[in-house]
Amino acid sequence: MEVQVRPEEQSNTNSYVLQLNKVRIEDPYWSEYIRLVRDVIVPYQWEALNDRIPEAEPSYAVRNFKIAAGEEQGEFGGMVFQDSDVAKWLEAVGYLLATGPDPELERVADGVVDLIARAQQEDGYLNTYFTLKEPDRRWSNLAECHELYCAGHMIEAAVSYYNATGKRKILDVVCKFADYIDTVFGTEPGKLQGYDGHQEIELALVKLYRTTGNDRYLKLSRYFLDQRGSQPHFYLEELEKRDGAVHFPQLDIAHDHAYSQSHRPVRQQDKAEGHAVRVVYMTTAMADVAAQTGDAELLQACRKLWRNIVSKQMYITGGIGSMAHGEAFSFDYDLPGDTAYAETCASIGLIFFARRMLEIEPIGEYADVMERALYNTVVSGMSRDGKKFFYVNPLEVHPDACGKNHIYDHVKPERQGWFGCACCPPNIARLLASLGEYIYTVRDRTVYAHLYIGGQAVFELDGQAVRIEQQSAYAWEGKTRMVVHTDIPTRFKLALRLPSWCGGRETLLLNGQPYAYEDADLEAGYAGIDRVWSDGDTLEIMFDMQVRRMKGHPHVRDAFGKTALQYGPFVYCMEEADNGPNLHQLCLPSGGKFAVRFNPDLLGGVNVIETTVIRRASEEWQDDLYRENSLAALNSEPLTGSFIPYFAWANRSVGEMAVWIRDC
Amino acid sequence: MEVQVRPEEQSNTNSYVLQLNKVRIEDPYWSEYIRLVRDVIVPYQWEALNDRIPEAEPSYAVRNFKIAAGEEQGEFGGMVFQDSDVAKWLEAVGYLLATGPDPELERVADGVVDLIARAQQEDGYLNTYFTLKEPDRRWSNLAECHELYCAGHMIEAAVSYYNATGKRKILDVVCKFADYIDTVFGTEPGKLQGYDGHQEIELALVKLYRTTGNDRYLKLSRYFLDQRGSQPHFYLEELEKRDGAVHFPQLDIAHDHAYSQSHRPVRQQDKAEGHAVRVVYMTTAMADVAAQTGDAELLQACRKLWRNIVSKQMYITGGIGSMAHGEAFSFDYDLPGDTAYAETCASIGLIFFARRMLEIEPIGEYADVMERALYNTVVSGMSRDGKKFFYVNPLEVHPDACGKNHIYDHVKPERQGWFGCACCPPNIARLLASLGEYIYTVRDRTVYAHLYIGGQAVFELDGQAVRIEQQSAYAWEGKTRMVVHTDIPTRFKLALRLPSWCGGRETLLLNGQPYAYEDADLEAGYAGIDRVWSDGDTLEIMFDMQVRRMKGHPHVRDAFGKTALQYGPFVYCMEEADNGPNLHQLCLPSGGKFAVRFNPDLLGGVNVIETTVIRRASEEWQDDLYRENSLAALNSEPLTGSFIPYFAWANRSVGEMAVWIRDC
Repeated sequence: MEVQVRPEEQSNTNSYVLQLNKVRIEDPYWSEYIRLVRDVIVPYQWEALNDRIPEAEPSYAVRNFKIAAGEEQGEFGGMVFQDSDVAKWLEAVGYLLATGPDPELERVADGVVDLIARAQQEDGYLNTYFTLKEPDRRWSNLAECHELYCAGHMIEAAVSYYNATGKRKILDVVCKFADYIDTVFGTEPGKLQGYDGHQEIELALVKLYRTTGNDRYLKLSRYFLDQRGSQPHFYLEELEKRDGAVHFPQLDIAHDHAYSQSHRPVRQQDKAEGHAVRVVYMTTAMADVAAQTGDAELLQACRKLWRNIVSKQMYITGGIGSMAHGEAFSFDYDLPGDTAYAETCASIGLIFFARRMLEIEPIGEYADVMERALYNTVVSGMSRDGKKFFYVNPLEVHPDACGKNHIYDHVKPERQGWFGCACCPPNIARLLASLGEYIYTVRDRTVYAHLYIGGQAVFELDGQAVRIEQQSAYAWEGKTRMVVHTDIPTRFKLALRLPSWCGGRETLLLNGQPYAYEDADLEAGYAGIDRVWSDGDTLEIMFDMQVRRMKGHPHVRDAFGKTALQYGPFVYCMEEADNGPNLHQLCLPSGGKFAVRFNPDLLGGVNVIETTVIRRASEEWQDDLYRENSLAALNSEPLTGSFIPYFAWANRSVGEMAVWIRDC
Repeated sequence: MEVQVRPEEQSNTNSYVLQLNKVRIEDPYWSEYIRLVRDVIVPYQWEALNDRIPEAEPSYAVRNFKIAAGEEQGEFGGMVFQDSDVAKWLEAVGYLLATGPDPELERVADGVVDLIARAQQEDGYLNTYFTLKEPDRRWSNLAECHELYCAGHMIEAAVSYYNATGKRKILDVVCKFADYIDTVFGTEPGKLQGYDGHQEIELALVKLYRTTGNDRYLKLSRYFLDQRGSQPHFYLEELEKRDGAVHFPQLDIAHDHAYSQSHRPVRQQDKAEGHAVRVVYMTTAMADVAAQTGDAELLQACRKLWRNIVSKQMYITGGIGSMAHGEAFSFDYDLPGDTAYAETCASIGLIFFARRMLEIEPIGEYADVMERALYNTVVSGMSRDGKKFFYVNPLEVHPDACGKNHIYDHVKPERQGWFGCACCPPNIARLLASLGEYIYTVRDRTVYAHLYIGGQAVFELDGQAVRIEQQSAYAWEGKTRMVVHTDIPTRFKLALRLPSWCGGRETLLLNGQPYAYEDADLEAGYAGIDRVWSDGDTLEIMFDMQVRRMKGHPHVRDAFGKTALQYGPFVYCMEEADNGPNLHQLCLPSGGKFAVRFNPDLLGGVNVIETTVIRRASEEWQDDLYRENSLAALNSEPLTGSFIPYFAWANRSVGEMAVWIRDC
């Protein structure tokens, strides 16, 4: 089928994000992470996909495609969603190629595209698990088998690769697949009224719609969203059809509908429940469809779910998912630090969701949360060398407890190597490789700057190309400099997010002169500077960098009577490496002064916060486990407590870590 | 086989506990509990065993015996250890009959004895599960199937019933069974070198030895103890023999040897690990065998395990077992209040262990711990009406969290009705029905008073019968009066435990006159009064009752910076019913005064502690989940906090509860 391609800017909203090839990141903090994606993670993942990493269990992912293409003999290997690993790799490759040529990488990726195309079935179907293992059981277990989830990832990969290279082959493959899916699913008689247990295809179909302009995909996305949670329940019906056969009996997905957000129609959901990644992938798609269609009810549901997540179920690190069981949300204000799940992928999904909401309504809170998740949980997910990963991001870790008290079975005190099917590492890779999409959005002739990441971006404003260059020292110094490059003076509004952490205390210099915006120019956390910009105009922005003592809502038990430190976008923690064991014995006096010192030799260069803390301890307890207060005297020893950014923890020795420190 | 019966006092230690028929309890606190056992629990359990409780799942326990006896048709029902429920019932009945006649109950019990005898196999074997379901697989799965555990409970029942009634029938049954077991197990060639996954028969065999004088049973007990944890590992060998078949795959008992304390020989264990009930049943038997044989190495192992439990792994309520997974110990100083398991049965086992150690060496700490477990966790296990039970005894409960965050799946905010196979209720019944065994021990001519429970006890001291009457107001007023009744003046030593909670501040009146013992008379927490006692001599003991602010060892994270109140033997807690929700927002000022008031109308009559607490809260947070300290002001509202004894919680409405309260 010949698809009609429209540039992303032409979608029927007046807000858009820049195509990746319009943005180049050169940032003292982020460039190194993106280099790791290009030089370490993506090449490593390619080896992993081809089962060439001796210390990792085989992926089988590429091999599965070869077998499905009839080019190799063998059995399917890996999880039912193994195909998605190939797709995520290809998606990340697309982003990398969009931001910088790499002929060798492109050659490898072209080969993968060819292989995928050869593995596609005549009718468009593409899924190696079912093709190889259960060819007669396509679409028989949507609740558990990730068939449409894998399709979604393949679509995202195709859009990314097509946008980067202009090569249509993989786009044609997924369009054929999506067209076929569209013949299978829907409310029309004879169609399956199903939807996937793991949301993903919904957001992918909107991308495909935006790339091809074919509104069949938008409608299909909306169908999948609206079908979820309808009655009679599809997962019960399909369970009965397959005589009760299940893949993951420990989860009971067919009956635990909240796990997959199918406990009620998505428009009626006002509380994040169940598997956290699924929630935010779903809300991302809901926001996408709302943006494309102007569906006010869907947008309202997005706003409610957003409000619930960020006001009641989000860790201060931007982590979401308070429990390991089901990798899921638990309930309002339940944010235990030590048993947190806070999966890296869930924070990535939260960033997806926030970016979509920013496209719809530029409100600072969306970008604040995006920044919180990005600078803390997402970066925490990866070691400094790009080779080890956290899936789970607790706020308090006691290595002694791991493996001994089973409530901590999911908590690792060290980042882990690549898994056989690893969700978080490729998700980090695709997010960081596409980070350029998260810095700005454009609406009419307003450029919204959400993140202060150094580099260049080219905008078309009133028909005029304008290049904005950011020289950013935001991460460690809270400041950035924006230089406008334009052939002719151009009027546009530059709307600067004022991060919530700076408390409205920022300093602006326009061409070296103090600049004060009018109250009227402040809107929803953005200060708008609406003027005719000439080439070379320079705006310096200095946010007030103070160590912030952060408190949790009084209903959050785990944060009550405690303080977390934040400096700039970073949440801080204490580690045993700096402060000794038994961190619970430390408390933070209320009036203490903070000394912030950038240590270039520590953890790749971080700001360290030092302040007086009190350790209350005793060497005299011996065998008593409980004592009367009068006999239980503890020494109060003041000492210099050292705090490092949360993301940098667990890069030295195995030890305790704590974000929330007791007040004293 | 004709067994030779010796009175318990003739065992080869010079220390003994009184036979139950020598003790009568009349106590303002305990008599009601014992009445509940007699009037409610035991009759209710009888109905349950006969599947006549409509709201409980059927037990099948009596029916299984009838089928095994060939008197009914049908299939075995219930768990592999279902027989033990009948045994525990019969054991409790024995204790009740020992302390007061009940012809109707005895008639029913005689019928049960007859039924058990008819279900016994020709060779002495007695287990309805294997007899009915796997007749060819006796002793094929000791790790999981509780075959010897059930045997142990039957032996305990027989000893109890024989001691109460003098009727030999059930004793003969279990002797025949034990003799058969002795032919099956042992280190001799041709014998199975196995031992049960759940310790119980070890302590039961010592009881049987003490009752019959047949040292074959003592030796068999010692064999089972010493065989545990030997290499090659028996559970791996038997697993291989049965081709890997398992009953409880979720536990992996064949490989997780610490779960059943078979990870190393018992003499080498110095840390409580694995399933908590099994640990204390094992140490009870170890102490029994050490007492009977003078085995110093075994005694030393008992002391080490005791030290580890009470100094590093016991809740302030006397609960043990920090985690639900495996109902098990976790690791030193890991005592989370909200995810605690602290099974009622485990505290009962700890009381067994403590009593055994008191027989060996009367050290106040053993009795202190016995009292702590008894007055707090054990009584907490039962509702005031004797109809509902806690298996799990957490120190902090958030009803909202139960069922929502799965780390609390084991926690119930309300006591539960009887289960199909209920371990804790019959264990509470047999402990309380035999409470008379825990009050005193006797060594030579010294009477050790461990618990101050009212009633009468008859001792034989230097050949002279001496009756000691306690008129106790210990529970609520911390005082008791002991009156000696004797035909002729008799010299003996009365050694009074000075509870650790009174801090050595007690007042004694002998015949109305202040009495001060010499320093030399104070030994290991007992004040000895060695004199010639005449009929009517009266000793009044008043322990200093102060509200004690208790602190946890500084390594106990969950208690750090918090206080628990104790008054007399009772640990206190706050409940939502008295103090409103969000108990975590309350803190206890350091200098506050306490008012203690006995409220006869509350919870059956309890001392309530009132004191000023501060609630730090705010109504102004609205949608912020995190705020900078300066914007996060909380109101500090002083209010009267009300504390009730821990055991009495959850007898009003469902609500929060907390033992450890934050300091302020």
